[in-house]
Amino acid sequence: MIIQFTPSVTAEEKSNINQSVTSLGYKSTEVKTQSGHYLVGIGKKEFDLRTLGYMPGIKDIHRVSDDYKLVSRKWKVGRSQLNLGDGVVIGEGNLSIMAGPCSIESEEQVALTLQHLKDNEVRIMRGGVFKPRSSPYAFRGMGVEGLKLWHKQAKAAGIKIITEVMQVSQIAEMYDYVDVFQVGARNTQNFNLLDELGRVDKPVMIKRGISGTIEELLYSAEYVFSAGNEKLILCERGIRTYEKASRNTMDINAIPILKEKSHLPVVADPSHGIGIREFVEPVALATLMAGADGIIYETHQQPEKAASDGQQTLDFAESTALIQKLKKTYTFLHSL
Amino acid sequence: MIIQFTPSVTAEEKSNINQSVTSLGYKSTEVKTQSGHYLVGIGKKEFDLRTLGYMPGIKDIHRVSDDYKLVSRKWKVGRSQLNLGDGVVIGEGNLSIMAGPCSIESEEQVALTLQHLKDNEVRIMRGGVFKPRSSPYAFRGMGVEGLKLWHKQAKAAGIKIITEVMQVSQIAEMYDYVDVFQVGARNTQNFNLLDELGRVDKPVMIKRGISGTIEELLYSAEYVFSAGNEKLILCERGIRTYEKASRNTMDINAIPILKEKSHLPVVADPSHGIGIREFVEPVALATLMAGADGIIYETHQQPEKAASDGQQTLDFAESTALIQKLKKTYTFLHSL
Amino acid sequence: MIIQFTPSVTAEEKSNINQSVTSLGYKSTEVKTQSGHYLVGIGKKEFDLRTLGYMPGIKDIHRVSDDYKLVSRKWKVGRSQLNLGDGVVIGEGNLSIMAGPCSIESEEQVALTLQHLKDNEVRIMRGGVFKPRSSPYAFRGMGVEGLKLWHKQAKAAGIKIITEVMQVSQIAEMYDYVDVFQVGARNTQNFNLLDELGRVDKPVMIKRGISGTIEELLYSAEYVFSAGNEKLILCERGIRTYEKASRNTMDINAIPILKEKSHLPVVADPSHGIGIREFVEPVALATLMAGADGIIYETHQQPEKAASDGQQTLDFAESTALIQKLKKTYTFLHSL
Amino acid sequence: MIIQFTPSVTAEEKSNINQSVTSLGYKSTEVKTQSGHYLVGIGKKEFDLRTLGYMPGIKDIHRVSDDYKLVSRKWKVGRSQLNLGDGVVIGEGNLSIMAGPCSIESEEQVALTLQHLKDNEVRIMRGGVFKPRSSPYAFRGMGVEGLKLWHKQAKAAGIKIITEVMQVSQIAEMYDYVDVFQVGARNTQNFNLLDELGRVDKPVMIKRGISGTIEELLYSAEYVFSAGNEKLILCERGIRTYEKASRNTMDINAIPILKEKSHLPVVADPSHGIGIREFVEPVALATLMAGADGIIYETHQQPEKAASDGQQTLDFAESTALIQKLKKTYTFLHSL
Repeated sequence: MIIQFTPSVTAEEKSNINQSVTSLGYKSTEVKTQSGHYLVGIGKKEFDLRTLGYMPGIKDIHRVSDDYKLVSRKWKVGRSQLNLGDGVVIGEGNLSIMAGPCSIESEEQVALTLQHLKDNEVRIMRGGVFKPRSSPYAFRGMGVEGLKLWHKQAKAAGIKIITEVMQVSQIAEMYDYVDVFQVGARNTQNFNLLDELGRVDKPVMIKRGISGTIEELLYSAEYVFSAGNEKLILCERGIRTYEKASRNTMDINAIPILKEKSHLPVVADPSHGIGIREFVEPVALATLMAGADGIIYETHQQPEKAASDGQQTLDFAESTALIQKLKKTYTFLHSL
Repeated sequence: MIIQFTPSVTAEEKSNINQSVTSLGYKSTEVKTQSGHYLVGIGKKEFDLRTLGYMPGIKDIHRVSDDYKLVSRKWKVGRSQLNLGDGVVIGEGNLSIMAGPCSIESEEQVALTLQHLKDNEVRIMRGGVFKPRSSPYAFRGMGVEGLKLWHKQAKAAGIKIITEVMQVSQIAEMYDYVDVFQVGARNTQNFNLLDELGRVDKPVMIKRGISGTIEELLYSAEYVFSAGNEKLILCERGIRTYEKASRNTMDINAIPILKEKSHLPVVADPSHGIGIREFVEPVALATLMAGADGIIYETHQQPEKAASDGQQTLDFAESTALIQKLKKTYTFLHSL
Repeated sequence: MIIQFTPSVTAEEKSNINQSVTSLGYKSTEVKTQSGHYLVGIGKKEFDLRTLGYMPGIKDIHRVSDDYKLVSRKWKVGRSQLNLGDGVVIGEGNLSIMAGPCSIESEEQVALTLQHLKDNEVRIMRGGVFKPRSSPYAFRGMGVEGLKLWHKQAKAAGIKIITEVMQVSQIAEMYDYVDVFQVGARNTQNFNLLDELGRVDKPVMIKRGISGTIEELLYSAEYVFSAGNEKLILCERGIRTYEKASRNTMDINAIPILKEKSHLPVVADPSHGIGIREFVEPVALATLMAGADGIIYETHQQPEKAASDGQQTLDFAESTALIQKLKKTYTFLHSL
Repeated sequence: MIIQFTPSVTAEEKSNINQSVTSLGYKSTEVKTQSGHYLVGIGKKEFDLRTLGYMPGIKDIHRVSDDYKLVSRKWKVGRSQLNLGDGVVIGEGNLSIMAGPCSIESEEQVALTLQHLKDNEVRIMRGGVFKPRSSPYAFRGMGVEGLKLWHKQAKAAGIKIITEVMQVSQIAEMYDYVDVFQVGARNTQNFNLLDELGRVDKPVMIKRGISGTIEELLYSAEYVFSAGNEKLILCERGIRTYEKASRNTMDINAIPILKEKSHLPVVADPSHGIGIREFVEPVALATLMAGADGIIYETHQQPEKAASDGQQTLDFAESTALIQKLKKTYTFLHSL
């Protein structure tokens, strides 16, 4: 169950409510986020909502039968939106396009990419400064210095930054330069990282694990939410299967299922989802048509010279074409 | 390599050509289909096309580096189309909608379904009379009698029939009542069945195996083609993965990849691809947007009473809505 | 539920029993095999065993909650054994070693293999004469002629033959020359083939599907049993996963699970399970230790020249070493 | 390539060697571990070993064609062993049994478990104090306090501790109380954690990722080794597949493949590998027979009351029986 407290709830009222919840055999967790104040009750027993419904301090109370609670759509009337400021809003009614290179490589690269995005009225730039790499000998990114040089230019251009955070200690050093923290597919179940991201007031986009289930992704979002941060985005980026013709298998099913199960915005990553440059466009359009609230993809001024992931990266001409088609498709879908 | 013979090629010319091919260290197979006459050469050695190019009896000659040959796009200028007659054409430039129940159950059900399709100008009806079932105790379909009663009505309605053939001995008894033979996901690698279907002059739609690779699907089509039947359709219907939130994982990537690798039409089956009624529509629209030439899905006058697969079957109102959206989406995509 | 009829059950008694079963809301199927006569009842309702237990014609009656019935261990006291004659018994208390080439290639090869098996007191030879191949252009086996030449020599040597049957029409032509019919991994759910194999009186070994579940394998065995043939062997041969370091992923878990769920003998195929010659031995020993009743593997006088599967085929020296170790391990395990 | 420096290598010699390596077009990384001093060269070009072989400061030089280098078996003559002190050695020639509960729960539980291990001469106890849980509301372990109370008793009993570390900040607080750090399946690719574990002088056991490849596991070990810690153990614990009859699919193939590819000890975890209490024993014996250097499994005085993983946990009687069988099997295998 989820209890929403009134804004003016007192300590005594909370204590009384908590006592009533635990007396029902429920384990309770108090959660205070940027915009809400909740008591989450975990338990299996049936109970009469009215027992609790009239207690002072309670604004509303909801049964949520899912094992994840706060991220479930079962208690929220509308879908969640995230406001990044300067008119950039993610979720319901907005098409979010996030584009940029796999890795931040240089000031010049950042400048070229920002110009490309501005030309196409794209408001969010992606890029990695901490790169998770299978091999310890591979390029691991420019680090915070790369982030700073990127941020300086992006701020001037009015473009928001989404970038991956790999460990707890990076959160503080990245904080001032990031608009959305991204949790990568290898860290979807890095629970300490999720806990810590629950304690900051910045949006977090969580990618589905390399072979993570849809349910695990929702649980990972629940970690962040229950630790105090409800500014969340879910991202489908393909899963690992036996098929070798593509890098991953884009799980198109996950888009409508996540949107049915959760009130959070859902973004798709076709670059990793298929991993082959020439097919990024059809997969991007397909995921949008399946209901995605946004698309995150890789583009680079010279994909064949990119420091990483060049084989799945669009050049700017391809990227421009894709952006136009995404916008038209989004409009078409909402007129359908 | 694929050599296209001239229509008037003589036995002697063929023999000379064959000799030249085998002298290059290539294993050769002669293939004669409804519309073509070929020599397929299998080998690895480099050779000079010109050595063979000037021999009498050769219309054209193509290098095809893929391991599958005749179904590869590498040798064909245009994409293949299948003409089912009465203005029903599958492939390139045509949106093929194939709808109907999982199982044929009764004359009344057939009549209702046909009326629904006519109302929506759908020209192909799907339905099973031989049902592959995991358990020997489950309903296995009405058999040929069901097919006959279906055919009688369908013919009158001007609607074509696609239905699954499960074994060689059924081909002959089904032949007169079928417009497209379907090979099911459990039979994708039933090579004897494929061989035999290569010897008839009816279109064949091959579903991808339950955990078949894209390459295996192409090889299975090569079986039919190389045995003499080039009227082929490929069907993506989802693959088996660890994810339990959906029946299968719809491999959206397979659509553009199959269309890149092969000249054959590609159809998507969202009903099996996700297996959940309420999500069939977004997945259907997504696969169309990814480039599918058609959609095959399950509909029934009363899904909750269907003999099989009810949980993924649309009712007629949902089906009508889907058909309208598919048509609009197809038009939109081709204007993009 | 499974009702075992008495040997002398009359038509009237059967009719009475059947009526009682269906009046409980159960669907009934009569099954008559080489050694048993049963009525299988499929239903969900609770009932009192005593209602049926006292009816004439009933020898015994068993509740079986699994969805597969006749192959379940829930109704059989002991484990099943198969007697191939000449002292060759498969199952409980016997280590069955089945070795031989992937494909039967020549009289000489057969002679060499038989001699190798005789030298090591192995009583069953494997080999393929009908080969399922992904590509239509690959070697598809010597066919029935190969089987006949093999049978002639094997009979003289006192060695039994296990070989794959790919389609219904082959059953009759192979019948006289085969001791155990093998259903391959691509045909595990070829239900027509399973039905027909249920109508012959020869043992059938069913391989698990390429990505078949344990439950599907049991259902496939149920097909054969319920059609009248209870001489069955289950074979674990590895499943398809994302891991590329081996040909398949040998599912060692399947061995104890199958033996817990079913009374049928379970054989393991390490050659396909790992697909790498040098590791066939440790995997073979491991599967035996996990409880397998037998091992089927590939050996050839010159693996590097084998017509197929050479990369996973042992030479005779390796095979001899493996056989000795299998025998010692089997003895050790049963003394543990 | 891997260059082993002499113990007395000078800065100047290193600089000269490094220059020669980079002049070959190789990227070099200097690695200093507890027992070795290396230069790892990453590159593709062919070179003549002799060019470098005669330079002062070089003890030995090895070509290693694998992409992982220091963990590869290609450069090491013998297999690695880890000495935990007090006569506890892991690897080659030693059977390592690591047993204990999923979670450390209480002093009493620790006492009972230690007594059980002593009775059976088991020298390493497993247990979790930081528990990675899908749900934020589940029990997450006793933390460092649990570790301290465990360590106090374990030290007195002469039994070593292996336990999971989940994040960088825990390393220091756990350091004095741990004999082997375990990296869990969800952290196999937590590269920051691996890097930091490369900077401490304690053995590290890395579990294979939930759907990690064998190659990724080796790369993860390479992270630790290349950061300075060569006291490493690899652990196979089953992978995620479509099969639902077991918790994971134990990849028995991984045991011989890992031992062929790497010089590191390989341990198997049958508890997670199958996830079903009654089948832990056959799977454990099988993995040992496949070549595992040790077994790590879960045991508890009352599995049905365990705080976590009870369904796959042995009671002490089952554990005792397993230990005896493991010892006999290990002896048997080495006499084979």
